[in-house]
Amino acid sequence: MMELNNTHNPDLKSWLSSANDKSTDFPIQNLPFAVFREADSAEYFRCGVALGDQIIDLQKLKVTNLVTRKAADALSLCQSDSLHPFMAAGQNNWSALRQALSELFTKGSGHEKLLENCLSPQSKAEFKLPCSIGDYTDFYSSIHHATAVGSLFRPDNPLLPNYKWLPIGYHGRASSIAISGTDFHRPTGQTKKPDAEVPSFGPCQRLDYELEMGIFIGPENNAGSTIAIDSSEQHIFGLCLLNDWSARDMQAWEYQPLGPFLAKSFASTISPWIVTMEALAPFRTRYTRPTDDPSPLPYLSSDKNSAQGSLDIQLAVALQTSQMKDSETEQLSQSSFRHSYWTAAQMVTHHASNGCNLQTGDLLGTGTQSGPEFEEAGSLLELTKGGKQSINLGNGEERRFLNDGDTIIMRGWCETAGRARIGFGEVRATVLPAQIISGAAQ
Amino acid sequence: MMELNNTHNPDLKSWLSSANDKSTDFPIQNLPFAVFREADSAEYFRCGVALGDQIIDLQKLKVTNLVTRKAADALSLCQSDSLHPFMAAGQNNWSALRQALSELFTKGSGHEKLLENCLSPQSKAEFKLPCSIGDYTDFYSSIHHATAVGSLFRPDNPLLPNYKWLPIGYHGRASSIAISGTDFHRPTGQTKKPDAEVPSFGPCQRLDYELEMGIFIGPENNAGSTIAIDSSEQHIFGLCLLNDWSARDMQAWEYQPLGPFLAKSFASTISPWIVTMEALAPFRTRYTRPTDDPSPLPYLSSDKNSAQGSLDIQLAVALQTSQMKDSETEQLSQSSFRHSYWTAAQMVTHHASNGCNLQTGDLLGTGTQSGPEFEEAGSLLELTKGGKQSINLGNGEERRFLNDGDTIIMRGWCETAGRARIGFGEVRATVLPAQIISGAAQ
Repeated sequence: MMELNNTHNPDLKSWLSSANDKSTDFPIQNLPFAVFREADSAEYFRCGVALGDQIIDLQKLKVTNLVTRKAADALSLCQSDSLHPFMAAGQNNWSALRQALSELFTKGSGHEKLLENCLSPQSKAEFKLPCSIGDYTDFYSSIHHATAVGSLFRPDNPLLPNYKWLPIGYHGRASSIAISGTDFHRPTGQTKKPDAEVPSFGPCQRLDYELEMGIFIGPENNAGSTIAIDSSEQHIFGLCLLNDWSARDMQAWEYQPLGPFLAKSFASTISPWIVTMEALAPFRTRYTRPTDDPSPLPYLSSDKNSAQGSLDIQLAVALQTSQMKDSETEQLSQSSFRHSYWTAAQMVTHHASNGCNLQTGDLLGTGTQSGPEFEEAGSLLELTKGGKQSINLGNGEERRFLNDGDTIIMRGWCETAGRARIGFGEVRATVLPAQIISGAAQ
Repeated sequence: MMELNNTHNPDLKSWLSSANDKSTDFPIQNLPFAVFREADSAEYFRCGVALGDQIIDLQKLKVTNLVTRKAADALSLCQSDSLHPFMAAGQNNWSALRQALSELFTKGSGHEKLLENCLSPQSKAEFKLPCSIGDYTDFYSSIHHATAVGSLFRPDNPLLPNYKWLPIGYHGRASSIAISGTDFHRPTGQTKKPDAEVPSFGPCQRLDYELEMGIFIGPENNAGSTIAIDSSEQHIFGLCLLNDWSARDMQAWEYQPLGPFLAKSFASTISPWIVTMEALAPFRTRYTRPTDDPSPLPYLSSDKNSAQGSLDIQLAVALQTSQMKDSETEQLSQSSFRHSYWTAAQMVTHHASNGCNLQTGDLLGTGTQSGPEFEEAGSLLELTKGGKQSINLGNGEERRFLNDGDTIIMRGWCETAGRARIGFGEVRATVLPAQIISGAAQ
């Protein structure tokens, strides 16, 4: 795990004034990565780094020749429409480029005129997936979520005996992962009402969001090899926000015995910005298991992981209905990734513990991040107690599950005294009405 | 669904004599696709078609200029190390190339000398995956397998209420799918013995195979759109053999509540040859549901599908232990894909029924194909009744699950009176000893 260095110095200021705004997600201490272009343009997509309200265009930056030595190699890996080569290249390259960017964009660097030409406004950008995502795995790392959901599906047996021993996970659908801003149609599917004799096919009636973090894999492990817990984070390029949309009525009918399938595979949405583990280093924390809980088995256990393996990332969900005005939203809940029962390192190590090859660009979802309090729940399923009680919105509307036209906005950020605020931006998407296709519906 | 045409004519003979051998898997009526090169050479991989004991090299074939008109376009899609462009191009292209190959390699075509130069012996070939597999989904389409396994994991409740209403499936791991001949290490993982107080980590003790078919997706559907049952097969490029290796002790401990994860993600192995739906057309058959069973909902139902949606593909599993001599094997079981409760078309339509985008090169596993009789089971879990009774091999060895050094060989073929035999070749791989990596094991 990473020591703090000069790129973390909270006193660093950029010559770009918007990066010094106390409320920005993207101060010079952050420097997250994305793939972008000017919206509605015919430009090629290219790699960029967020700074204040701007994006550092890494293709234009290369042309300046201001980035030299080791960082020039790293920068040369960021010249296509995918972060894949850079993600594969590992921590030394990530750190080298971070260090170079930090120096160039710090006040007094002396190249402001040249560097200003490398900036594009975020307000005019559109984004795409940062890389091709080969495999998507979703974990279930919040014990509060697992307990709450378990009590709805299995009231007699909410938390299964394996939960405290291994990070429960399952394979997800990669093809339907989209970038923030990609709206999607309400899914159709088979459901069976409790009092119905037979199932029926139609639009999902219990559409939900799930507040998650995404973990992007950097360097790969070979098939047949495992990843030791203490080197696990070397395989993590960084984290993003993830909304794992869920069709609860379809899930309840289909999920036994092999797990969720079509209830999850119609859409998952990620934030454009990937925040590196180095940027998150000041927000490491300890997760303390209740004293009665078992210690993780040795392959999931290390002093470093238990002392510093958790990350205090604040996570919030807001709803914007079609009746609300332009920028009006209503916050539904807020929690922190620090409540996760399993760390990112433990998820990666467990995933590869059978010899499964993790590949560069693979995405691991953490599972819904619900906190210990009821109002910290990361899904409507929990907040409405399985749809039994509705949420009253400030504008007089109410919700049990999502309506057509609803937009869900998730945000993530880290704040602690004496440190620069590190943010993730947002992930948002709107639910469009179901498309009933002739032949598939009845 | 496809009408029979002149490429299916059982009286067609090739000028290549090995293609006329009654026992060959690859007569001129088959013409399956793969990606190959000469073994241990520095050649590029390229697309090929099996004929008798040879491979038609589609790069060399293009250079002959013997393939003209519509088939020339199709052939031009087979000029890289991936079948992806050809798979994406759809039925008209597949049929055009099949028709051209059938004509050129039929006795009396008149170009034997030129075409002989396009042949490479299968005995000297090595294969790779036919395309990049974006997503892998595994179904559970044999009711006999589902009932047998269900009774081991849930004796009181073997077949769940949803089984007869929808094709149960779950997302699998794409990165660890390998081509036949790729050996793999016995996985390590967490297991908990029934009488143990706590779980432990170590090599899998109950390693099993699963006899499946793989379905390769051709043309894609867009995200948010569905696939009507009557056009479903237009999205299927063809079928292969699939061994979905399974760690039963890891599966039993991890699979609740979200389904199999590391018990399946260490290795899956497919045969190199993809047999097209057109080649399989003479072996279509009806699956008759028991009269008490519900009819499928309209979106999964059509007259065409029920009359012709099943395929009578014989499937067999053989074991070769390290104590057996070179070509000695022992057959463990044999069944047919015609016993599948759900058809390939139903699996595809159900998969896309929520708007999930299926992509070219995606692989759907059918799930283990067990027949109605006990000895037709497609896994050791079933044949040994959950490891309770061992199988006695002819050479005096016995097995409950697989030992290190065991090779599993699966074969598939279609035979019916008055038709040429259509075969899949084989899929094989050997279990290597577990690699205990320091730090991951205890």
